[in-house]
Amino acid sequence: MTGESAFIASLRGLAGDPAARGLLDDAAVLETGGSRLVLTHDMIVEGVHFLRDDPPEDIAWKLVAVNLSDLAAKGAEPVGLLLGYMLGRGEWDQAFVRGLGDAIAAFGAPLLGGDTVAAPGGAPRAFGLTAVGRVAGVAPGRAGARAGDDLWVSGSIGDAGLGLRIALGEIAGPATLLARYRRPQPRLAGGQALAPLASAMMDVSDGLLIDAQRMAAASGLSLVMDIARIPLSSDFVSLCGDGREARIAAATAGDDYELLFAAPRDRAAAIGAAGEGLGLAVTKIGGFQSGSGLRLIDGGQEVPLPARMGWEHAAL
Amino acid sequence: MTGESAFIASLRGLAGDPAARGLLDDAAVLETGGSRLVLTHDMIVEGVHFLRDDPPEDIAWKLVAVNLSDLAAKGAEPVGLLLGYMLGRGEWDQAFVRGLGDAIAAFGAPLLGGDTVAAPGGAPRAFGLTAVGRVAGVAPGRAGARAGDDLWVSGSIGDAGLGLRIALGEIAGPATLLARYRRPQPRLAGGQALAPLASAMMDVSDGLLIDAQRMAAASGLSLVMDIARIPLSSDFVSLCGDGREARIAAATAGDDYELLFAAPRDRAAAIGAAGEGLGLAVTKIGGFQSGSGLRLIDGGQEVPLPARMGWEHAAL
Repeated sequence: MTGESAFIASLRGLAGDPAARGLLDDAAVLETGGSRLVLTHDMIVEGVHFLRDDPPEDIAWKLVAVNLSDLAAKGAEPVGLLLGYMLGRGEWDQAFVRGLGDAIAAFGAPLLGGDTVAAPGGAPRAFGLTAVGRVAGVAPGRAGARAGDDLWVSGSIGDAGLGLRIALGEIAGPATLLARYRRPQPRLAGGQALAPLASAMMDVSDGLLIDAQRMAAASGLSLVMDIARIPLSSDFVSLCGDGREARIAAATAGDDYELLFAAPRDRAAAIGAAGEGLGLAVTKIGGFQSGSGLRLIDGGQEVPLPARMGWEHAAL
Repeated sequence: MTGESAFIASLRGLAGDPAARGLLDDAAVLETGGSRLVLTHDMIVEGVHFLRDDPPEDIAWKLVAVNLSDLAAKGAEPVGLLLGYMLGRGEWDQAFVRGLGDAIAAFGAPLLGGDTVAAPGGAPRAFGLTAVGRVAGVAPGRAGARAGDDLWVSGSIGDAGLGLRIALGEIAGPATLLARYRRPQPRLAGGQALAPLASAMMDVSDGLLIDAQRMAAASGLSLVMDIARIPLSSDFVSLCGDGREARIAAATAGDDYELLFAAPRDRAAAIGAAGEGLGLAVTKIGGFQSGSGLRLIDGGQEVPLPARMGWEHAAL
């Protein structure tokens, strides 16, 4: 058990309230009379989650977007944000506020409060964001998949991974891919439309394989994923092709912020119609059965799991 | 305008939702059908809010307590917490969890979720906490005082300031004073009992004088405070006496986490009875009038404002 896993295990003892969902879900879900409030908190640190030279506008946007992606995965609409902000230089801070304003305007999640603190001289900066959402119906957890359910994913996978490589100067590529990395789009409308149809839902943040594995484990099921079905963008295919190696790279890159969900087979038509209504691709990529573990196939052929499944960073 | 003030002013443009209360209150207050949810977020940083050698148990306790004090000032009962945690050494982290567990058990605020992140090597650590509370009735703001209202404060003022000096090794003193600094007790029951009687309420965190000045400014009123009436503990008086200099020191030290509230004169008996019922001292220390500014008197005599009124750190 890593230090982080041990720490989280000990925190779990303090999270007995049902709203905490045992710290095993993307967000807490609080009953408040008629509706449910969904609460999530993410922290980002310079040198770990962003680089000193990254545009502050994009750091702010991404901080908002990744939190709202957790709300999207519970089918929630945003209510507002609380920001924990470590002050830096005036210009940098003002650029951060511009990016925050862009995201707030784009996603309709007003700033409700927070805290600003001084940074000790030269210290890497850290920011925290709490996002609050509201869901009228059920907020699907990641543990609700049932044997026989299909596994679905929205949008396309692997673009943000290429965007990161572009940002690092490792490859050249179109601005659309860089934007997938720096300005992710939480699937809020998709989450709201698909949550009532899903038996389990989460967002893809650490990598499609590792996140799908987590859903299967939380649900106490085995999962077979057909990597030939993983949806790739035309930009991705232009740069990397769509061979097995490229698909494995896409499925382990992370930062996709797409919706990953399980649903009974007889809901396939309704899911397709919901995606079509929103202009959001939805693709069936696998299926759950009793048992445990993740198996990959490529067309009909069994494929070994890669050594690295995604980002191992654990969320609460 | 300092960098922090400029930053907060620009954030205010992103906080148009009424729940944000213009970022001028201690907490956001969200209408959720029948009840109201109160949300607050604080961030603490090593070298700024705590020292590397401080006991991790106490750092955790205080992080919870200061957030719950903001809930108390809105008359809310705790619902739960979200933690943003920067991982350190395993032993330190486990001690932090113990302190967190102590506070959670003491105040009935379960952990609902959060995030853990890696710390870049050697970086000062930062933690964030979001506290969620619920209030059945009105959540008094800091801007609601009216001309003719009395100013009241709970408990005793200045003890935590002496506790800090004990922690720094500047003076010797009893453990009770050190505990007031390291293990503050948010006035949750007091807040719930007094909120329905108050026209404005906030907690004393940055110093009695500066916080009272903020309430008067937010309410668009002038305030006269009689420093002779500031409640001092017997521990405080044993160490410092109760002369004018000691009272000014108490009123500017901060970290008291007492309730500061305005109420119409005809509620004095009800306020006294509420305090008596809880075993919580409540003391009338001043009064609001039309106009602006804070004036101090000592008995009948006007006293100049001290150069330093408290901690200037601004909260959102």
